[in-house]
Amino acid sequence: MSDLAQLVMQRIDALAQISDDDGHTTRFFASPAMRRANHDVGSWMREAGMSVRVDAVGNLIGHYPAAQPDGKILLLGSHLDTVRDAGKFDGPLGVLIAIACVQHLSDAKTRLPFAIEVVGFADEEGVRFQSTYLGSRALAGTLNPDELRRTDARGVTMADAIREFGGNPDAIVSAKLDANRVLGYAEVHIEQGPVLEQKHLAVGVVTAIAGQTRARITFTGHAGHAGTVPMNLRQDALCAAAEFVLAVESLAQNTGGLVATVGEIAASPGASNVIPGETRLSLDVRHPEDSVRVRAADDLKKRAEGIAAERGLTMKWETVHQTGAVICHRHFTTLMENAVRRHQQEAPLLYSGAGHDTAAISAICPVTMLFVRCKGGISHNPSESATEADVRVATAVMNDFILQLAKSA
Amino acid sequence: MSDLAQLVMQRIDALAQISDDDGHTTRFFASPAMRRANHDVGSWMREAGMSVRVDAVGNLIGHYPAAQPDGKILLLGSHLDTVRDAGKFDGPLGVLIAIACVQHLSDAKTRLPFAIEVVGFADEEGVRFQSTYLGSRALAGTLNPDELRRTDARGVTMADAIREFGGNPDAIVSAKLDANRVLGYAEVHIEQGPVLEQKHLAVGVVTAIAGQTRARITFTGHAGHAGTVPMNLRQDALCAAAEFVLAVESLAQNTGGLVATVGEIAASPGASNVIPGETRLSLDVRHPEDSVRVRAADDLKKRAEGIAAERGLTMKWETVHQTGAVICHRHFTTLMENAVRRHQQEAPLLYSGAGHDTAAISAICPVTMLFVRCKGGISHNPSESATEADVRVATAVMNDFILQLAKSA
Repeated sequence: MSDLAQLVMQRIDALAQISDDDGHTTRFFASPAMRRANHDVGSWMREAGMSVRVDAVGNLIGHYPAAQPDGKILLLGSHLDTVRDAGKFDGPLGVLIAIACVQHLSDAKTRLPFAIEVVGFADEEGVRFQSTYLGSRALAGTLNPDELRRTDARGVTMADAIREFGGNPDAIVSAKLDANRVLGYAEVHIEQGPVLEQKHLAVGVVTAIAGQTRARITFTGHAGHAGTVPMNLRQDALCAAAEFVLAVESLAQNTGGLVATVGEIAASPGASNVIPGETRLSLDVRHPEDSVRVRAADDLKKRAEGIAAERGLTMKWETVHQTGAVICHRHFTTLMENAVRRHQQEAPLLYSGAGHDTAAISAICPVTMLFVRCKGGISHNPSESATEADVRVATAVMNDFILQLAKSA
Repeated sequence: MSDLAQLVMQRIDALAQISDDDGHTTRFFASPAMRRANHDVGSWMREAGMSVRVDAVGNLIGHYPAAQPDGKILLLGSHLDTVRDAGKFDGPLGVLIAIACVQHLSDAKTRLPFAIEVVGFADEEGVRFQSTYLGSRALAGTLNPDELRRTDARGVTMADAIREFGGNPDAIVSAKLDANRVLGYAEVHIEQGPVLEQKHLAVGVVTAIAGQTRARITFTGHAGHAGTVPMNLRQDALCAAAEFVLAVESLAQNTGGLVATVGEIAASPGASNVIPGETRLSLDVRHPEDSVRVRAADDLKKRAEGIAAERGLTMKWETVHQTGAVICHRHFTTLMENAVRRHQQEAPLLYSGAGHDTAAISAICPVTMLFVRCKGGISHNPSESATEADVRVATAVMNDFILQLAKSA
């Protein structure tokens, strides 16, 4: 497999050059760079023995036939779009390792009981239309046609963007895969976190994608002169917010698998000599078990109410976003664990705190994910990095997974 | 004295109409509104038997002669400039009560062993040139001539502004009073805080003006994805800042007379799904005893260092401003306390957390201040409010103070 890992790394570098921005890696949905990326990745698919099509929404799909014409389809892949000024690995790694695995089968002239379709999803990051998983939701049939009316920063509708790209917004439902024909979906992705690096391991098996609750919290007290209002007569909204920030941290530290973050804070009026009368915070809570996440958010809301009441302030809580967790398929996870154990000393089970195409595809079939260690846990940044050695392990694991699945299918 | 309090309130309302902005009360240093204010207040000084002059920097000064030509001078007053969209009482109240007291003497044809000079200071708020106490520092001889080169938002230098107003920037030293001839300074001012309202008292005696330390603190940790970095691998700069905010509050609550405030906070990158890598805070610490304030600032710096060290973050501390406390004159304070006790059930001793012209004038003579209750502790705002009844008490107290000083002089 050593040549294949080298090939993946070369293609990672080549794809990073295909950008809508000079000097950066930026590929938005249905953009000129995405057209060039689909062209080049499509040619690599063909080299691996696949027939290639682009569906109504712009997903690039390579088909490697089954031994029998009535075989089911194993989906592999990830996304080819990126954030602005992106790293090289987030998305492309999963597509290119999948192609490498098919190449390996093709080189050995091996047919499996199932077909393989490698998908380069057209839009996972959702930067252009502020709408994530466009590509994978189209495949899963969960894309709402109303979303086609969304506009990008220049006022172009999603429908027109798809049409200009060569797709067919009126036939978007045609992109939906027949769930009865799909065996499952497996995605390789960089971890985008520091856990594998801490464990000194190349790869890990994802057991679930965390659900998420996002809220906006406002504490309102009373602004006043920093010099003239004694401490015992203050209703300082920032002190209340500080208590809440530490309560969030403490609850997450004491709840296994929970992550909770206050990423935004604003105190007003916001002058060094004025006691803050109002403080606004964001809250992001994630956990692979929905019941734990919902209970945590409830606890934090009660805690915010308690802090406000104790200090004579008011508190407003707005839940702005909620998504449920996705549990990866038990049988697929076991196969993936076994495959990992053949290539490194242990098979760590992780959950993903970030969302992935896997979450959208889980609507129609069993799913599994393999994470690859990334340097410093850094992602969405040009310094995103994974080693060729780790890519070699990931490619070998995926190859094993596919063969084990073929035996059990 | 009842007519005088009514007169003060009428003049307060009249002065509030004199503004550089339509519909607001805004009077900046050396502005057209300040010229009209000096004109009207000067005419009220003359009605009270004073001769009137405007000094080289633009201070309006009314002189009420002593019984003997070699008598010293008691200074009374406050400032006539305001912040933008100001209240009616901050500044004018002290000038107008001083004029009312002289009116009372003049009506009774009383001469005292000392002359009285009522000063309407030209600039205390310092909004136009970002430089406080311009007027009182000119009188105290502590205004640095280099400051004349400062420019306002339109690029006009302070020297040109003074010249255009009719003053003489080249003779700014001539505004300095002869310290040997000045007996002392007494200023009436609204409290700008909630203490007298809480005590249900009209007035209180100020024993000191707090010193101040201002600092900027930066905690630097490590930004990361809110979904993918486990709690135990985070270096969250906002959590460190939250600990510090509560440490500031706790120290101030447990140190008599200390007020300490974090009024500004900024977390970056500042997105709901990103762990804050850096958080910047302001700190404002005030106390009437310098040793207590300096120790508190040192303790908080050590605390910030400790919080950063415990969390594996770095901390940067910049002290951006320090002023020492001003202690009011013991004999003057005693006279003022006795005067207050004749007009309300007790004479509360307060310190001022905000700065005043009194602080600048203390460089050349004994000083005392009388605070007047203000509604809700609100100041620097059109809703700033004091009652005629409280103004009546303040006017009577100041009158008593002047007569007691005359007896003891």
